[in-house]
Amino acid sequence: MSGPIVVINPNSNQAVTDGLDQALAGFRLTGGPAIECVTLTEGPFGIESQRDVDGVALPLGRMVEARTDASVFIIACYSDPGIDLCRSLSRIPVLGIQESGVLTAMTRADRFGVIAIADASIPRHIRYLRRMGVEGRLAGERALNISVDDSARNDGTFARLVEVGTRLRDDDGAGVLILGCAGMARHRAPLERELSIPVIDPTQAATAMALGLSLSQQTD
Amino acid sequence: MSGPIVVINPNSNQAVTDGLDQALAGFRLTGGPAIECVTLTEGPFGIESQRDVDGVALPLGRMVEARTDASVFIIACYSDPGIDLCRSLSRIPVLGIQESGVLTAMTRADRFGVIAIADASIPRHIRYLRRMGVEGRLAGERALNISVDDSARNDGTFARLVEVGTRLRDDDGAGVLILGCAGMARHRAPLERELSIPVIDPTQAATAMALGLSLSQQTD
Amino acid sequence: MSGPIVVINPNSNQAVTDGLDQALAGFRLTGGPAIECVTLTEGPFGIESQRDVDGVALPLGRMVEARTDASVFIIACYSDPGIDLCRSLSRIPVLGIQESGVLTAMTRADRFGVIAIADASIPRHIRYLRRMGVEGRLAGERALNISVDDSARNDGTFARLVEVGTRLRDDDGAGVLILGCAGMARHRAPLERELSIPVIDPTQAATAMALGLSLSQQTD
Amino acid sequence: MSGPIVVINPNSNQAVTDGLDQALAGFRLTGGPAIECVTLTEGPFGIESQRDVDGVALPLGRMVEARTDASVFIIACYSDPGIDLCRSLSRIPVLGIQESGVLTAMTRADRFGVIAIADASIPRHIRYLRRMGVEGRLAGERALNISVDDSARNDGTFARLVEVGTRLRDDDGAGVLILGCAGMARHRAPLERELSIPVIDPTQAATAMALGLSLSQQTD
Amino acid sequence: MSGPIVVINPNSNQAVTDGLDQALAGFRLTGGPAIECVTLTEGPFGIESQRDVDGVALPLGRMVEARTDASVFIIACYSDPGIDLCRSLSRIPVLGIQESGVLTAMTRADRFGVIAIADASIPRHIRYLRRMGVEGRLAGERALNISVDDSARNDGTFARLVEVGTRLRDDDGAGVLILGCAGMARHRAPLERELSIPVIDPTQAATAMALGLSLSQQTD
Amino acid sequence: MSGPIVVINPNSNQAVTDGLDQALAGFRLTGGPAIECVTLTEGPFGIESQRDVDGVALPLGRMVEARTDASVFIIACYSDPGIDLCRSLSRIPVLGIQESGVLTAMTRADRFGVIAIADASIPRHIRYLRRMGVEGRLAGERALNISVDDSARNDGTFARLVEVGTRLRDDDGAGVLILGCAGMARHRAPLERELSIPVIDPTQAATAMALGLSLSQQTD
Repeated sequence: MSGPIVVINPNSNQAVTDGLDQALAGFRLTGGPAIECVTLTEGPFGIESQRDVDGVALPLGRMVEARTDASVFIIACYSDPGIDLCRSLSRIPVLGIQESGVLTAMTRADRFGVIAIADASIPRHIRYLRRMGVEGRLAGERALNISVDDSARNDGTFARLVEVGTRLRDDDGAGVLILGCAGMARHRAPLERELSIPVIDPTQAATAMALGLSLSQQTD
Repeated sequence: MSGPIVVINPNSNQAVTDGLDQALAGFRLTGGPAIECVTLTEGPFGIESQRDVDGVALPLGRMVEARTDASVFIIACYSDPGIDLCRSLSRIPVLGIQESGVLTAMTRADRFGVIAIADASIPRHIRYLRRMGVEGRLAGERALNISVDDSARNDGTFARLVEVGTRLRDDDGAGVLILGCAGMARHRAPLERELSIPVIDPTQAATAMALGLSLSQQTD
Repeated sequence: MSGPIVVINPNSNQAVTDGLDQALAGFRLTGGPAIECVTLTEGPFGIESQRDVDGVALPLGRMVEARTDASVFIIACYSDPGIDLCRSLSRIPVLGIQESGVLTAMTRADRFGVIAIADASIPRHIRYLRRMGVEGRLAGERALNISVDDSARNDGTFARLVEVGTRLRDDDGAGVLILGCAGMARHRAPLERELSIPVIDPTQAATAMALGLSLSQQTD
Repeated sequence: MSGPIVVINPNSNQAVTDGLDQALAGFRLTGGPAIECVTLTEGPFGIESQRDVDGVALPLGRMVEARTDASVFIIACYSDPGIDLCRSLSRIPVLGIQESGVLTAMTRADRFGVIAIADASIPRHIRYLRRMGVEGRLAGERALNISVDDSARNDGTFARLVEVGTRLRDDDGAGVLILGCAGMARHRAPLERELSIPVIDPTQAATAMALGLSLSQQTD
Repeated sequence: MSGPIVVINPNSNQAVTDGLDQALAGFRLTGGPAIECVTLTEGPFGIESQRDVDGVALPLGRMVEARTDASVFIIACYSDPGIDLCRSLSRIPVLGIQESGVLTAMTRADRFGVIAIADASIPRHIRYLRRMGVEGRLAGERALNISVDDSARNDGTFARLVEVGTRLRDDDGAGVLILGCAGMARHRAPLERELSIPVIDPTQAATAMALGLSLSQQTD
Repeated sequence: MSGPIVVINPNSNQAVTDGLDQALAGFRLTGGPAIECVTLTEGPFGIESQRDVDGVALPLGRMVEARTDASVFIIACYSDPGIDLCRSLSRIPVLGIQESGVLTAMTRADRFGVIAIADASIPRHIRYLRRMGVEGRLAGERALNISVDDSARNDGTFARLVEVGTRLRDDDGAGVLILGCAGMARHRAPLERELSIPVIDPTQAATAMALGLSLSQQTD
């Protein structure tokens, strides 16, 4: 039988890991792979700067090397930190949630919009889309400009998501939206209902792809 | 509870549908969505020409309109026939296996190779990659140049897959391969072992994405 | 002597066919090919939805197969319905008016703007430009958001064309405009005079290309 | 009534102008615009170097300014010399044969091949395709590596065209070929018959587009 | 010892040459190549139209052929006039300031903004970026819409630079700005301080690259 | 007066640093900035794997933070390790030699070829070119498939460089070559003479750009 899908929260905030665990509950099925959410204890409390991103690469690599029992790894931070390294260290598939979220969005509409937490991350995301070779499908990216912490807790977040999502849909022509952060899963369905276009939670998107990779290994 | 994933074989060859059904057995999990493989009885016996592709669009659309119980549709033919129409007729997600196969391959290596059944379909596939906006990730596409029927039955197919796959890997620089046909799932794992690079069966790739979409609807 | 240019109106509205016939009168020259405008009687009264687009593919294919006397076919609907099918069925050249309109616009300025009838068709057009590999030349596309019927009859259409065209020229940087519909030929010259940049009627653009293809066959 | 299409041979070799005149005979129709082939007497005997290309820009501009009676200009050299200048000096449309040839080829197959006279011009052509924003449609470009003069006279040219065209079709995947020179019109039809894919003579392609522009001006 | 860097002002305005000379003073180092600013006396007083651009190509070519003592040439006009010709005539490297300015900007931020003198030059610049294959890095281009002469003298220019630069930074997402003219070097540092993002003077960028090419020739 | 250009060898092999120091001797000019080559003592002995690349990011970042006296930093490894981090930590410009080498090559010919040390690094380089948005200018990349150590010492390296360079020039159409490694500067000039097309040493290219940035800061 194949091993668990290991979802790594690369920050050391256990509450974020618990939130991921809850958001992915529906993906745990009898007969399917276990889905294990783990905290990278060596990570910073939150990943906000480029230093945070680069700082977790080696610890992530060590975790990937250690967990030879995994069937698929998911790096659950929208910056996809350490993805090249982890892929180089193991033949076990490694998914990044930005990559999976974007690719999944591309099945739901012609052009996608991205809702970022902060303006500062937009150039990094656009550079990543260019590296992926899919920047032609980007309708636009706009930021909430609220802190990661706020985005996880504050009830006012939803109103801001609606505001930014509306501009992406109406002004930029986005036919689908991606939540550009690991901690906003609970807003996915309400936002989709409010805006009447699909909304992608990137962690769920990656978990779906991981489930498929895990099951097709078992199938062979 | 959410409805079944409906995998539509757009040709009328029940043996192909049965093959799909078998290839997807591993994706049926307790608590997960049912996966129902159905034959488009109005379809041709095999989809080989552009006329076959365009001829199944309306019948596919009717099936999508009829099956309001589905949670996701998969059109299980590598030409992704009728995909725009089906998407326009329903808010239920519709996946094409070419699209899903390509997007999934993009998580496994920088550039992908495609193994087509016949030379004649290569321009159609390249046009589709350009439409998807991902042609920059294509390492190359090469054809087996054997018939669809042969590809499903003939034992000599595997040797030819190895030959074509080797050229895609070594001459074109493909880091992952996509089987460009709905009926080659049983060759996926052996080919992957033989060539030491990931091999994607597009129907499994689409089913994985469908499972994710279905489960994330339930999750909300 | 070579056969007629067959301009197919893929909807069943004879008034539209008559309008095309009139708009192309100037392209009928002594010694040149006949230009025959025909109605696809099996088509819907207007082509507005993806179902309308896909529904006319097979009837268009049959007409192309039947008219072996033609020197060139033109599919006179901006969605270029059935173009891949018709091209696969005949060695006689087949032109779509969106394709010809865009390619012709590319000779008149660096970036082109498109005036669509309705917002709903913009994603379809952009997808088509990407498939054509020319999306880098698009300045923008904006919709009139009036009905096809209105666009053919209503006198207020011109004011709206000027308004939308002005935004494409001044805000989006378009150096040439394309009328994104088969029935607006009579507005071409007045709009060009009003905005002082070239305006392309796509049916005339396709007919020009068809005339060239027909004559170069004769020339050989 | 609208004025003549003025086809400018930018080299001073009258034999080339006479050849153009003959190749375009079929495009002269009663009631249509006159097609006048003129020699740029200030041009070099042949345009082979970048200096030749840049050297004819100003004389071409003066001719365009002088011929206010023209309805359309065609610059009949595959390098499209002086095209930006001529367009900046007049509101009369100016067509280059490379541009028109490429755009016309894009209506006949997904990817086009170009047959150049000499290897040295390939980088210049590729740069021009990139500037046009259509390089994604290029299957490949290969050179005859014979002189311009030979290409116009030598009977052995045809065998070489077949050889190079075959490689573009079979090795590079070209579905249509463009003759990358103003003086090879007489080879178009035989090469098309030999290779069974469309072959575009760029001067005829430009003349077709010019005819359309001229007639649509009259039509208004 | 290697020869001088020859910076050619392609207009005949000696004051502009003197300005260049002054702006490059800091690049003249003991042991390094001489930097010689020369006036193209055959050039127009200012290069504003396409005719001006094309008119200086041949004189520039002659200068490049004459100065066989140079180690590198710089064409100090943002339109990069005659660059293809000059490169074809000599094995001595030839740099254009638009090209060098853009390439240098690409080292300072993900997307660059361009400040043009006038709206009319924007399509020409965008076409050039497309030809360079770097248009994906352009955040936007906006014009001062003041005359070249004003841009060199008028004190109000700086306020306008700040205004246009602010829009490029805040509305278009530019992370670095390029001064799209040869005569604005004195505004570089103040504008950079004002806007807190890097500002590139294209002539200095080209001179830096030239210095490198010259020194690496000496180094070998 | 402005500070030194700090060239960081991110591996701990002092011999490589000494080689860089020697290769850049010609760029040290009286009145110009000092050029200081430093060894990242925390780096691995050679940077060959993705782990090596990611492992030096944080140490490079610390060095950049510590050296507030620098005018420009150069990261002297073709993988451009830590470049995003270093740029995020300081307003002092940071150059990567791959980026600088590629951008400089783009001034010397239309399409560039890259000579890699090993096949394994080609996908990483291509991904980086795509991220840079310049992959359209790549003619091809081919590997020597010799070790980094060999590349620095072995006399047989030159023969292999000529062999690989010839294929890039003749089969792939490269008009300029980039040495894809920090330690091959001494082969630059001989290879350029042998192949008759420009050859770029990326460290020299970056140093040239650094010199320019340093001097233009002084100039203001």
